[in-house]
Amino acid sequence: MSIIPAQVGAPIDEIDTPALIVDLDPFEHNLRSMAAFARHAGVRLRPHAKTHKCPTIALRQIAAGAVGQCCQKVGEAEALVRGGVRDVLVSNEVVGMPKLRRLAALAAQASIGVCFDAAEQVEAASRAATELGVTLGGLVEIEVGMQRCGVAPGAPASELALRIAAAPGLAFRGIQAYHGSAQHLHGVEARARAIAGAAEAVRETLAAIARAGLPCEIVAGAGTGTFRIEGESGLWNELQAGSYVFMDTEYARIGGSTGDRYTEFQHSLFVLATVMSVPARERAIVDAGLKSYSTEKGLPWIHGRVDVEVTGASDEHGNLRVAPRAAPLHLGEKVLLIPGHCDPTVNLHDWFVAVRNGRVEALWPITARGASS
Amino acid sequence: MSIIPAQVGAPIDEIDTPALIVDLDPFEHNLRSMAAFARHAGVRLRPHAKTHKCPTIALRQIAAGAVGQCCQKVGEAEALVRGGVRDVLVSNEVVGMPKLRRLAALAAQASIGVCFDAAEQVEAASRAATELGVTLGGLVEIEVGMQRCGVAPGAPASELALRIAAAPGLAFRGIQAYHGSAQHLHGVEARARAIAGAAEAVRETLAAIARAGLPCEIVAGAGTGTFRIEGESGLWNELQAGSYVFMDTEYARIGGSTGDRYTEFQHSLFVLATVMSVPARERAIVDAGLKSYSTEKGLPWIHGRVDVEVTGASDEHGNLRVAPRAAPLHLGEKVLLIPGHCDPTVNLHDWFVAVRNGRVEALWPITARGASS
Repeated sequence: MSIIPAQVGAPIDEIDTPALIVDLDPFEHNLRSMAAFARHAGVRLRPHAKTHKCPTIALRQIAAGAVGQCCQKVGEAEALVRGGVRDVLVSNEVVGMPKLRRLAALAAQASIGVCFDAAEQVEAASRAATELGVTLGGLVEIEVGMQRCGVAPGAPASELALRIAAAPGLAFRGIQAYHGSAQHLHGVEARARAIAGAAEAVRETLAAIARAGLPCEIVAGAGTGTFRIEGESGLWNELQAGSYVFMDTEYARIGGSTGDRYTEFQHSLFVLATVMSVPARERAIVDAGLKSYSTEKGLPWIHGRVDVEVTGASDEHGNLRVAPRAAPLHLGEKVLLIPGHCDPTVNLHDWFVAVRNGRVEALWPITARGASS
Repeated sequence: MSIIPAQVGAPIDEIDTPALIVDLDPFEHNLRSMAAFARHAGVRLRPHAKTHKCPTIALRQIAAGAVGQCCQKVGEAEALVRGGVRDVLVSNEVVGMPKLRRLAALAAQASIGVCFDAAEQVEAASRAATELGVTLGGLVEIEVGMQRCGVAPGAPASELALRIAAAPGLAFRGIQAYHGSAQHLHGVEARARAIAGAAEAVRETLAAIARAGLPCEIVAGAGTGTFRIEGESGLWNELQAGSYVFMDTEYARIGGSTGDRYTEFQHSLFVLATVMSVPARERAIVDAGLKSYSTEKGLPWIHGRVDVEVTGASDEHGNLRVAPRAAPLHLGEKVLLIPGHCDPTVNLHDWFVAVRNGRVEALWPITARGASS
């Protein structure tokens, strides 16, 4: 783990850089805002921990009303349970007996669910659960439009549900119906059309499961780009949005109902960087690059300055262009970068530096950083 | 730090995934090949540790003839010195007294150099070195074409060199002349043209430093794409290539002297992944995504199979397309992915799993993982 980047109580200027910053006022606004939506819509909120990888944030989301957490990997589930989370769904398939045994071991301490899209995986998970004398919740993942994992809707899904229900050590809980590629479609209408297609798949599957005589307690899915649509659909009853706590430029660019920016949530996540070189008036180099933020969804934006632009990034450098009449940047000056994609950016850091009004309020360890296995 | 992904002696199929693999035969070939080039060219080799972030690999490079290591950050230098490396150049500017004091503290145990491109930074480093009673080597970074850090060649460089030479606690050692954007130009001729321009800047600077009456011991630079050109130029005398130990698809795509692939070095770095879902005959999903390899320079290639292609990646998934008549992929099958960009990929992992002939020979901790400060 890296050295601790700041002291509690220090002003933001004293934070060692690069550092991952959570600004607590917008962060808490986002937390409350999503919790309020779920409450009013009458659906459960199970935020995705792949975004923050931090039990401290998980427990804050639960305190605000979330029923638990979801995550993608067994390693993340381990970090969450170790950090005090008592209800975790791995919203993903888990392959291989070593990983399934690790997952089953967690079920002795917490309520653990996992997704399936293949019969042989049901057998393997059942074996791990019975070996350890625990019960694992099982969800059938269905394909709803993103062409990733998942069985076809309808009969193939209900057949797998029956297998789960019949397997020792497993309990059928519901379906996983997440449309990942819909989240970043530009424009509310495009996202609504995509989720309308997903809703058809959910309806068909719920009918097939009902015909099979099984109760389907959970219909899970949704992300930060589409949660209102699933949440108000009358079909989904558990929302798995994650990025809403932080936001990033990829989400900002998807467009809202009234404009080109998506403003449901506020930017609360930043990479703090220091100007390390000013080779020319119109150029400045900062000490944060590809190892401090991910750029596969676009370069970062500069927070609070529209006249400075990130034009390139290498491993440990960010290149900034200062507009002709803009205030110049000075050697040693600190800037806040808004990452292009929050999840893989968080995964590069060991600590969140939680700040409020420009002062460090807390340091939160990112204990599931790197927990991809 | 993540759980250890394998046991020494285990076959590759038993390695937990995702895992970062170093195949030792090609790795050692690359190590020897670059060392032999430097020896024959009569130049020093100081490989870049930002690529591997691992003292075990650093010590192997040194055992093969390298004079030490270079790196980009103080945190990397700390990990290298802690791991037994006794000669480290930070080939980059270091800004702020806390970082400069950490750097100076290392100079009590090892020979430490650092780069400058601003007079105020010379004063600050001098203060840190004198406070701690040590000497820091100082190189002047010059701009040679990549528009990142660095002073202009010629008089501005020699003026800064004189400042370093005059500053208590600092010793002027030479110039840093790295042309980063030349490394990935497509075609040997394009790279040669770019380095010819950089050579002009070096010549002008060496003349100015000579006129100022200073000896210039080190002319440092070069990367995996251009090292032959700098190494045979008669100007550069210290090569800082890093990626050559591993290779990646970005380097493979730059083209060689006799073909469209750059084959100076062999691919030795892989991300081992497991097929976690086979939703259709022509598609398979693996358990390694953006948190196991960086994609900003392109998606990974599948090692050893030209009939399977990575078509997309999300946080923890890779989407594979299997060609129509290709052998299908099976649930649980393992595949080796060749990353698009080795440096930020390594920075996602805590361990190298070193394999030879399909068996785990060693586990090397990536102790500078995340050391960006």
